[in-house]
Amino acid sequence: MSVITLTTDFGDLYPAAMKAVILGINPGAQIVDITHHISQAGIREGAFALYSLVPYFPAKSVHVGVVDPGVGTARRALAVKAGSPGNEQFFVGPDNGLLIPAARRLGEMEVYEIRNLDLILHSRVSATFHGRDIFAPVGARLSMGVPVKDVGPESPDFVDLDFGNFGIDGRFVFGEMLLSDSFGNVITNIPEEMILELCDYGTLFEVNGRQVPFLQTYGMAGKGEPLALIGSHGFLEFAVNQGSAARYFGIEAGDPVEIKVM
Amino acid sequence: MSVITLTTDFGDLYPAAMKAVILGINPGAQIVDITHHISQAGIREGAFALYSLVPYFPAKSVHVGVVDPGVGTARRALAVKAGSPGNEQFFVGPDNGLLIPAARRLGEMEVYEIRNLDLILHSRVSATFHGRDIFAPVGARLSMGVPVKDVGPESPDFVDLDFGNFGIDGRFVFGEMLLSDSFGNVITNIPEEMILELCDYGTLFEVNGRQVPFLQTYGMAGKGEPLALIGSHGFLEFAVNQGSAARYFGIEAGDPVEIKVM
Amino acid sequence: MSVITLTTDFGDLYPAAMKAVILGINPGAQIVDITHHISQAGIREGAFALYSLVPYFPAKSVHVGVVDPGVGTARRALAVKAGSPGNEQFFVGPDNGLLIPAARRLGEMEVYEIRNLDLILHSRVSATFHGRDIFAPVGARLSMGVPVKDVGPESPDFVDLDFGNFGIDGRFVFGEMLLSDSFGNVITNIPEEMILELCDYGTLFEVNGRQVPFLQTYGMAGKGEPLALIGSHGFLEFAVNQGSAARYFGIEAGDPVEIKVM
Repeated sequence: MSVITLTTDFGDLYPAAMKAVILGINPGAQIVDITHHISQAGIREGAFALYSLVPYFPAKSVHVGVVDPGVGTARRALAVKAGSPGNEQFFVGPDNGLLIPAARRLGEMEVYEIRNLDLILHSRVSATFHGRDIFAPVGARLSMGVPVKDVGPESPDFVDLDFGNFGIDGRFVFGEMLLSDSFGNVITNIPEEMILELCDYGTLFEVNGRQVPFLQTYGMAGKGEPLALIGSHGFLEFAVNQGSAARYFGIEAGDPVEIKVM
Repeated sequence: MSVITLTTDFGDLYPAAMKAVILGINPGAQIVDITHHISQAGIREGAFALYSLVPYFPAKSVHVGVVDPGVGTARRALAVKAGSPGNEQFFVGPDNGLLIPAARRLGEMEVYEIRNLDLILHSRVSATFHGRDIFAPVGARLSMGVPVKDVGPESPDFVDLDFGNFGIDGRFVFGEMLLSDSFGNVITNIPEEMILELCDYGTLFEVNGRQVPFLQTYGMAGKGEPLALIGSHGFLEFAVNQGSAARYFGIEAGDPVEIKVM
Repeated sequence: MSVITLTTDFGDLYPAAMKAVILGINPGAQIVDITHHISQAGIREGAFALYSLVPYFPAKSVHVGVVDPGVGTARRALAVKAGSPGNEQFFVGPDNGLLIPAARRLGEMEVYEIRNLDLILHSRVSATFHGRDIFAPVGARLSMGVPVKDVGPESPDFVDLDFGNFGIDGRFVFGEMLLSDSFGNVITNIPEEMILELCDYGTLFEVNGRQVPFLQTYGMAGKGEPLALIGSHGFLEFAVNQGSAARYFGIEAGDPVEIKVM
């Protein structure tokens, strides 16, 4: 059994074409949908989704990521091996930064450019759906044990990506909103460690002119009340207990955030 | 092959973290998403989803339910074994009633409190995501054959839950709206048996001032026409053929319903 | 391992009941959701989804399609075997045309009416959920190697379906909008071959009073700019790079389309 994950902005229908191709090559694959609802062309959002989940997947998992506004243009296709020896995971997708934060999180990283046409679908590749025609078949073959270096030459150059600036300035912590999840919780790029060094649970924060307590979990705020917390992904997050912080604070992915620690 | 189901209010992304953990423990698990779109904190709605589906799952299935507004507070975590000997299914989730109607439907029920830290994820458990850190790993271990009594002490006390009052009062049947499904069909808590003892197909009902025929199936009403029927879950349901009863009747989950049998 | 796909208009919850039944019969099935978001009663839309995906699935795949406004009425239930010998795929669903374009695309086609009650769920079949009670169990049994002729008598008559008229009239190409996908791309029923014989990439089209270039892929148009292209399914499609063609052109599934080749 080998795990193959899919992270795309495809919504409906197209993911099934990728699964069809994968199961034609590796009939026993365990396919896990990470999400197909990344915002259209939301490369950083997709990168964060992968980044936050990879530590939980077993060794040898193959992650196929397709948030790919440049499909069919000159952008390259990559396969990446990352992690400590014997404990690696694999990544397949476009060279636009999508795969890099997740791969780097696992440790040592080898990046290859996909050039070997024997590993892709048929001889004909559509100009618009490399998820089906290139990334799915290459991912399936890696999951069958094909060595990653067989995909093509090692590629020391690749498009890098980070989650934006964050830091401390006096009594202010600043950063960016990375993603608003299905609950309306808004996840920042400010890591757990920075916040926990700075203050204790119970501290009041001021954000966008509103005061919110920094608490351990949702249920410690009253129903409908806002809070700040460290989310399960290890980043500072804003939430409203049984409500939507995205609406409450009027913030969304990409917005800068400045927090005054009271 | 063992089946593990997931029923949550997580929407996107977080279910994949649970699947990652499950497949790390039981690489051959057959994971079935029951739904990840329970209304936020909709414990009764989630309980009904589980209740309506468990009879169709094979013996030994493990159902992980996470509609959990109390995560990280003092609420307990449960594992339940239910069903006739040799034909049991298992349930894992918070002690808030979510699992109980489904488990009870299968027959004999044993309830245990999860206390055994060897069965959960790593040594560190987040305050906000017990689905990933407790319920998924315990569910995966039960699916591998770990005996349910290994999770912790048997717990005769637990939060119970039912689907609300229903009954007959003269020519009136009363109950509650449990859930509006993706078609806009509105499902009540009034069981099939009560309706079928009271009247025959073809009878007219009056609901919210509107008359609707009680029919066997959607296609027996004209396109856009309302009807009452026994849904596939065994409860009285209101529908509009190729339309939305939720909109037509202006009713939603939790509303009381009173039906005059004409 | 055998692949069973599901294509429905069920949205949430009900697909899990079908999966429960399938796994009870074939515990090792690889179940793939093609989509559960076909428009309510959108038979042609569902037929197109199946049609566009079947070429990518491995031999012996079983496709269960349930877009079934006539459930519980007199409409018949079908099982279809299609494809070249040794390379067949199977289809199960209502006799309303849903399965036919996909099956026909694979080549030779044998159509059977499901009559054998030994293959369906229990002795009792609900009037409203043949997906769970008939199509899922028959599909699971076909995936286990039950011969398709065991379902019932061969049926030379069945409801047929096509994707509507299309053609060329002087400098005009006409057809219909089949489906708007999750990106807002609008897919027509005009096949690749007809367009590529008529003009080259770079040609200007005029559609609904707006001019759009015919290009190879999304990223060749500026961000927010419209284009026409051959989609990955092999049909002419209208798109807006990182935007919604459905909104831009004000068109939706079922609309006629007339393209002036400039």
